[in-house]
Formats: sequence, C-alpha cells, structure tokens
Amino acid sequence: MRTATSHDVARVAGVSQSTVSRALRDDPSISAATRQHVRAVATSLGYVPIDRGRSLSTRQTQRVGIVSAELTNPFYPELVEPLRGSLERHGYRALLIPEGDDSEQALQSLSDGSLDGVVMTTAALGARLPHLLHRRGVPVVLVNRQLDGTGLDTCVMDNANGARAVADLLAGLGHRSIAMITGPATTSTSRDREAGFLAGLAEHGLALPTARIRRGEFSYQAGRAAAVDLLDGPDRPTAIFCLNDVIALGACNAAAARGLTPGRDLTLVGFDDIAMAEWDVFSLTTVRCDLPAMAGAAVSLLLKRVRDPDREPERLVLTAELVLRATHGAPR
Amino acid sequence: MRTATSHDVARVAGVSQSTVSRALRDDPSISAATRQHVRAVATSLGYVPIDRGRSLSTRQTQRVGIVSAELTNPFYPELVEPLRGSLERHGYRALLIPEGDDSEQALQSLSDGSLDGVVMTTAALGARLPHLLHRRGVPVVLVNRQLDGTGLDTCVMDNANGARAVADLLAGLGHRSIAMITGPATTSTSRDREAGFLAGLAEHGLALPTARIRRGEFSYQAGRAAAVDLLDGPDRPTAIFCLNDVIALGACNAAAARGLTPGRDLTLVGFDDIAMAEWDVFSLTTVRCDLPAMAGAAVSLLLKRVRDPDREPERLVLTAELVLRATHGAPR
Repeated sequence: MRTATSHDVARVAGVSQSTVSRALRDDPSISAATRQHVRAVATSLGYVPIDRGRSLSTRQTQRVGIVSAELTNPFYPELVEPLRGSLERHGYRALLIPEGDDSEQALQSLSDGSLDGVVMTTAALGARLPHLLHRRGVPVVLVNRQLDGTGLDTCVMDNANGARAVADLLAGLGHRSIAMITGPATTSTSRDREAGFLAGLAEHGLALPTARIRRGEFSYQAGRAAAVDLLDGPDRPTAIFCLNDVIALGACNAAAARGLTPGRDLTLVGFDDIAMAEWDVFSLTTVRCDLPAMAGAAVSLLLKRVRDPDREPERLVLTAELVLRATHGAPR
Repeated sequence: MRTATSHDVARVAGVSQSTVSRALRDDPSISAATRQHVRAVATSLGYVPIDRGRSLSTRQTQRVGIVSAELTNPFYPELVEPLRGSLERHGYRALLIPEGDDSEQALQSLSDGSLDGVVMTTAALGARLPHLLHRRGVPVVLVNRQLDGTGLDTCVMDNANGARAVADLLAGLGHRSIAMITGPATTSTSRDREAGFLAGLAEHGLALPTARIRRGEFSYQAGRAAAVDLLDGPDRPTAIFCLNDVIALGACNAAAARGLTPGRDLTLVGFDDIAMAEWDVFSLTTVRCDLPAMAGAAVSLLLKRVRDPDREPERLVLTAELVLRATHGAPR
C-alpha cells in the first residue's frame, strides 16, 4: 500500500496542495474551519507530512545532485556550469551524477539523505525516477527536458516555437527539399522540436517525407553519420535542420568532408547555440537557448521546493530565439 | 607545533616510510629489531598513525572528490569522464569539485571526512592544498599536472618529450620563423612543454625570441586572440606551436578568420589530442595524451594510497606521441 501524500489530502479535502501545507502548519491565512477540515482528512488518510521532515533533516548536507549526461557532450557542461554556479551562490555544493536508469540503486543513492535536492537534466519521457524521488520527499526539479503531466517543478525552453521559427526561415528562403536529423524519441526536446518544425512546415504547405528524417543520438558522431548519409543519398536535400548543435556540428564536418560550404552549397541549422556554434569555422545559424537563465530559474524552483515541499508545482518555459549566422541561404 | 608524520619517523629512524608503516603493523617482513626501533622512534616523536585511522573511518563514504577546472574547457570532461568511470568500476562515486584556491575553506571541505580521497587535476606549481590534505591523512593523487619534489602520488604525461617531438617536426619541415602560444606559468604542463620545445629547437640551432611567444589562459578565446595577434603582426611566423589543443582550436579559427588554411598557408600544432582535434574542419596535428590511461593509472595510485596510507609515493609518466594530421607542412 502506498503512503498518502499531500496531493491525496488536497484531492480528498477539495483544496490545493498549498492550502494543505499551510493548514497543517497553522498558517493564519487559512480559516480555522479549513484547517480543521484538512487536519481531519489528513488523519483519516494517515498522512504524515514527511516531505517537510525529510527536507528539514537533510538540508544540512547543503549538497544538491545534478543528474547529467556525459560531459563530453559539450551541451551538458554549458548547462551544468551555470547550475553549479547558481547553487554555489546559494550555499550549495553540486554533486554531479551520471545519467542513470530508473533502477532501485539510483533511487536509493539519490534519496539516501545525502542530498538536499536533485536537478534532473536528462529525464526521459516516461521516466519513473523523478516521480519516485518526489514521492520520497526529495525536492526535484526538471530542467532542459520535461515529463508529461507531472506535477514536478520544470524549467524548459520553448522548443516547439523555436523549431517553428526554423521552419519559417527555411520556407522563406525557398527550400522545398528539407531534411531533419533528430535525437532520441524518448526525449521531450526531440519530440517538441519535431512537432514545432513539422507544424511550421505544414503552415507553408511543406511536408517532410520519412525518407528525409534521420533519428539517432544527440551526438557529434550521430550527426556526422546521418548527414553523410543524406548528402550521399539519391535525393540530396538543400537544407537540413539538426535538432541540436552537437548534431549540427557533425553535419558541418560531414559537409566539409564532401567539399560543401554550408550557407552556400547547403543550409544547415542547429538548436541550442552552444559556445562552439559561434566559432569562425562554423558560424552556425541556430536557435538560442539561454542556458544560464534556464539554470538560474531551475535552481530557484528547487530552492522554493526545499523551503516549501508542499507548494504547487511550477512550469517555466523560456523563449528560444533564432540566431542568424552564416550557414543558411537560398537553395542552389 | 605540527604533528609528527610517518615521514618524520622514517627520517629519524633511518628507514623508508613503507618500513615505518609495515613495522607499526607488525608485518613479519620487517625484523623484530627494526620493528622495536621504529616503535621507539614513533613513541619519542609522539607519532600516532592517524592517516590509517582516518582512512579506515572515512572510506565508508565511498566518495572521491575530483578537483577540476571549468568543464566548458573540453579537455576536462575528457579527463573527468574516464576518472569517474574508473572510480565507479571500483565502487566509488565521484564528487566533482571546482578548482579552488588554497583557502582554509577548500581544505576544510575536502578533509571533512565526506571523501575517501581526492584527485587533483589542476594543481598549480607551489600549491599548498595537496600537501595540507596529505598531512591531514586524506589520500591525494595528482593527475595531469605535477608539483615539484612533492612526495605525493602523481600521474602525468611526458610533456617535455612530447614537445621536443614537435620541435623536431617543425625543424625537419624547414621552419625558422616559429612562434609559441603557451598557458599559465603556474602550470607544470606549460613549464614542461615549454622546456622540452625550447630544448628541442636548440638542438636544431633554432631560438625562440620572446617577441614570438604569447602567454595566456589555456582557453579557446586566449588561443584565438594570441594567434590573431601573431598573424596580424609585422613578423608573421610560418609555424605556431600551441601548448594545448584548446589554444590550437582558437588558432585554427583565427587562421580561418584571416583566410588562411592551416597545413598549406601556416603550420599549427597542438597538444593533448582531444576528440575535436580529429574533426574534419580541424584535422589537427597534435601530441596524443592517452587520457583514459592517465585516469586509470591515477585512480589505481589513489586506491593503493587508500589501502596503505604510508606507502612510498609513486610518480608515473606516460609517453606522449605525435599525431600527424593535416595542419603541418613546409613553410611557404
């Protein structure tokens, strides 16, 4: 039998989770009648506000775990460093934890009381771990990737509208033979960017046949291999939208290997605007994600959760902006 | 008054630290007379083998700290990931700690009993922190950078001979107008690579005037700026040795910004062979450091130290090999 949570109490009592939290700590902003009602429901469900107890007992560690993918993927250092900096400014030391699975071991080590909270940068769609941690009273924030209908604090970029802007750009330049190199279907970043891109193309009367879609890892190697495959194929596209910059850098190198100059012979667009996108040899047209802003907002959400474990979950969506550099142009 | 260490006992007793360690735990490989002598000296100096006690009491954390520079410098992820992997294979979780100073705070947090050992990847020449940690009984290993005459376990590349091979290459190609972009004078990597390069050039009767030396951070930005300065100057060199690959990638981009093709118009050589060095758009001639091998060796040293805090310190030097790609050629 699972333990009752403040969410259960709120549902049964017909009030918000925040009201449950405030009622149980006798916050004067809640009427005496409501306080009594909530307390009765909590008792009947056997609800003990362990979230708060856990948080108060463990926050002494002043340590927060950051679950990250391999740091050799340059996107992650650019997200992890501002997360770490922001945590440090708030007096927390960051413990970097490699992306794990939903195994019992990962759950145990993240909820063993050694961490005051967990920042998850790589949650896969359908992941159970963030929910299990939350249920155990470990403050959790999702950043970069989101889960569906979670009730977890989340901070992501507006991936769909960022990708839609790329569709507008390519259609406006006159491209008709467009390809897409995307990441794993288990990531919300892939799913949301794909959806925005396809919707944007459809608005311009353009379709994306599956023969011009390549799916693989969010990695340089995967991007390079997929681009080589598209460029060597019978129906070479005039524009390729790469769903992140690491894939796009792979595509830039594939173009170089085939003697093609992006922006002149071929349009390549990325997503993220990592530091390398601006390097002279790439000068990549891409969609800018303000990673320091996203990191700062995620840390704020986490610390609010540490202070008030029963508050309503928040979901922040930051605007992603097109950055026009040198790798786009009209089709040849 | 400072506490006596096993080093002091060894000095006064006229035996090695390893003998002190074995004598005090009644290892039968040490003669009864020596054991008695060592024990008498230890008592007279008030030596208590706290190192061992500390290690046994703290190894329960199964956590090791890795002190690293900013992970946005791609060299560090390529060193940190294999360190982390190697530690995990031995049952340790890695705590990544940003490069700090020698402050009391850094010392406290690294020796507060929460870590079984510390891997230092960024020790500056003259740094006191590694010694202070060692004196407090915290197992420490230096990797990548070394300190002078330390008595600390250390694993580094043979930086001097790697750089000497670059001097041989440039001299053999006929370069006479050679420049060098180096890193901070406080790092053993800069010092040892500079020394090897200058010695190698001298063997070929070549000098390196200070006007053709640029010193800055080990960063893309510093490398690009220094290369722009050299390329725009009155005495443009025909070859530039960049003391690490991140600097060399900056120089490659500076060349691109000036319309120069490395390998044809200009020779550029790096050091480290990070993953990006092999990318099509760079194809950088460089000196290969086997970072997984260096990481594995460093972790082995650390775990030996954890098991036997009083063993003689070891210093491992791994061979660095020249990798010939596309950015070198005869002077034009």
